[in-house]
Amino acid sequence: MTASPLLYLQSGGPTAVLNASAQGVIEAARRLDLPLYAARDGLAGLVKGELVDTTRATDAEIARLSTLPGASFGVSRHMLPTWEEAPQEWLALRDVLERHDIHHLLINGGNGSIGCAARFVEFEQHTGYPLRVIGIPKTIDNDLVGTDFSPGFPSAARFLATQMREVAVDMASMAQRRIFIMETMGRHTGWLAASTAAAAQYAGDAPQLILLPEATFDAERFLRKVRQSLDEHGHCAIAVAEGLEGADGRPLAEFRPDATYGHEQLGGVGTWLAGLVKRELGMTSHVAQVDCLQRAARHLASAVDLRLAHQAGSTAVEWAVNGKQGVMTAFARRATDTPSWEVEPVPLASIGDRERRMPAEFIDADNLWVTPAYLDYLRPLLAGPAAVPWDKDGLPDCRAIDWVSI
Amino acid sequence: MTASPLLYLQSGGPTAVLNASAQGVIEAARRLDLPLYAARDGLAGLVKGELVDTTRATDAEIARLSTLPGASFGVSRHMLPTWEEAPQEWLALRDVLERHDIHHLLINGGNGSIGCAARFVEFEQHTGYPLRVIGIPKTIDNDLVGTDFSPGFPSAARFLATQMREVAVDMASMAQRRIFIMETMGRHTGWLAASTAAAAQYAGDAPQLILLPEATFDAERFLRKVRQSLDEHGHCAIAVAEGLEGADGRPLAEFRPDATYGHEQLGGVGTWLAGLVKRELGMTSHVAQVDCLQRAARHLASAVDLRLAHQAGSTAVEWAVNGKQGVMTAFARRATDTPSWEVEPVPLASIGDRERRMPAEFIDADNLWVTPAYLDYLRPLLAGPAAVPWDKDGLPDCRAIDWVSI
Repeated sequence: MTASPLLYLQSGGPTAVLNASAQGVIEAARRLDLPLYAARDGLAGLVKGELVDTTRATDAEIARLSTLPGASFGVSRHMLPTWEEAPQEWLALRDVLERHDIHHLLINGGNGSIGCAARFVEFEQHTGYPLRVIGIPKTIDNDLVGTDFSPGFPSAARFLATQMREVAVDMASMAQRRIFIMETMGRHTGWLAASTAAAAQYAGDAPQLILLPEATFDAERFLRKVRQSLDEHGHCAIAVAEGLEGADGRPLAEFRPDATYGHEQLGGVGTWLAGLVKRELGMTSHVAQVDCLQRAARHLASAVDLRLAHQAGSTAVEWAVNGKQGVMTAFARRATDTPSWEVEPVPLASIGDRERRMPAEFIDADNLWVTPAYLDYLRPLLAGPAAVPWDKDGLPDCRAIDWVSI
Repeated sequence: MTASPLLYLQSGGPTAVLNASAQGVIEAARRLDLPLYAARDGLAGLVKGELVDTTRATDAEIARLSTLPGASFGVSRHMLPTWEEAPQEWLALRDVLERHDIHHLLINGGNGSIGCAARFVEFEQHTGYPLRVIGIPKTIDNDLVGTDFSPGFPSAARFLATQMREVAVDMASMAQRRIFIMETMGRHTGWLAASTAAAAQYAGDAPQLILLPEATFDAERFLRKVRQSLDEHGHCAIAVAEGLEGADGRPLAEFRPDATYGHEQLGGVGTWLAGLVKRELGMTSHVAQVDCLQRAARHLASAVDLRLAHQAGSTAVEWAVNGKQGVMTAFARRATDTPSWEVEPVPLASIGDRERRMPAEFIDADNLWVTPAYLDYLRPLLAGPAAVPWDKDGLPDCRAIDWVSI
């Protein structure tokens, strides 16, 4: 069975290191002399049988794969139903796999994608076609359970912490009082917003406030702390996750006809907070909405993240060949003075479609910052920097790799 | 007169390389064995006599000054009246200068600040106190006249082009159709928004549209081009300057009670465009509002910018000592295969309080992109990268320098 090609696919939103995992997969397959195909556009491409042959790419192309942001093979949000919901879709998948004699599937994705991967575990039982499936973790949101962290998160965190630190210096340079609000991604979890805490070199440094979806927003306490920071530092820097919730458990910045007099509210929670500050304190705020920049910023990727994303990919190939089935290449942290990580198998069924929120011990008692325990967790993940291939114009060389279709 | 201290100050908004100019000033003064003071918080500190003695800083501190974003001596938006408007303020300034025997003033700033510097030219005529003044250019907006470019702009441009290129790769990875809008600074000029054009490696690459304050916004033409880009590429990336104007010559995103039913419009022109696209094309957009990140991102500073910002500072010291008066250290570009720049004196009075907008030959005929001539102008300015002092956490070391007050 080992002479049959393995199939790899990327799924969900890209990260700065998703292609490092792809590189790990491809290099391991080459080392083991195994043919390796990849699906275009993730599960959407797999369903349609749109595959590429990675063996047609040169070693030089594979060497620069990990320097590219995005998802080199393409991704989609296409998800798979259960067997009971749509057996015909699974039988169509069987046709695609059988046509290419594929018996090993490596799915690189976040919660939804790992949930889909888990549904492949019973593929043989339902279709009579032997298939092994291994999951490879990926998400900037860091909300996969069963793993110490998810590749992609450390690099996004390093980007956010770097920018927060640089803006903090800029802000401290200004004689006038200033409020700066940085809105990060995170619809349900605060890992990314919380990562800006690493920007603080000394106690009291920016960000002075961190607002997390895991901690109910209290406007009075928030405004009190903003005033206090303005008095103490002359400025106040705030990091806020896009999914910050009010006391009713609903996101503060979602569409609320009653609150906007029938007009759709545009802009996110950062803009919403700026409105609150304007009304209550009479001050305008600077608002940065970082959006996709935080997940695309390969130029600030964490070297630890790159290395471990690569390892998650190469280990997945080894496990597939060695007969492992239905597990994800999860990370376990070894608690030493210099933390290190080991890749361990965790069952896909225990991971998919769940969500890891920030635990209470990582959130400060006043709900407006993180604890030292969170910083101890975060800091080893940020270590960098990673090399960037600058082109003659001084910008990162991002030329796409032209994969050869089968 | 040369044994009396020179006085340096930073004024206006910080840039990623403002402290490189400060370093150039200080190192030149040390080389010439001249005492050098600096004002805290720019002109606001000068008026109050809040000075520091740079000779008290160590060489190691001065060596890392250029690695810091922000304005190490502090800045303010404090401007000076004319002599006729407020002679008493000028006489108070005379007291400050006389108390410290200062006869050379170096003002590092943008349009407003250089305008103030120009008012010092007649200082001796009005107050009887001999004073020479030299201006040092600085602004990310690149809107100073009389100089090929303003230090600070190339680094902000390199940040914006890098981020646009990385996000473009991320966007191209996604199977579904996407619109991405990046709002840059630039209330009256489009130099920064236009700089994202360098992100395009091949014709048609992102950004597909660039919206400049110098080019009247035409909603129909805009929407037609967005549709066309979605059809051709599956995505559309748009760079827009915050000050984009409508046909009436007013910024599209300014407070307009009539258009918002009495509610103040929050969010900038990027959000405004997203609303237009939503209404007319029924699509949601991703909006990045880069805000202060673009001027604080020292980690992406252009090496050319850093070097020339330093040179502008050191040259100012040499000129002050050699008797030049009332000029700015402007840059003239030598048109060779590899462009180079020479520092040339340009009278402050011809620069201050004016504004250089993008000339017509840099704006494409359809008002939605730039010309090859603009890219020829821009590219040599971006060359990098510059070294960054990463700390043990993988973040840029931004510890402030503790200047000693006089």
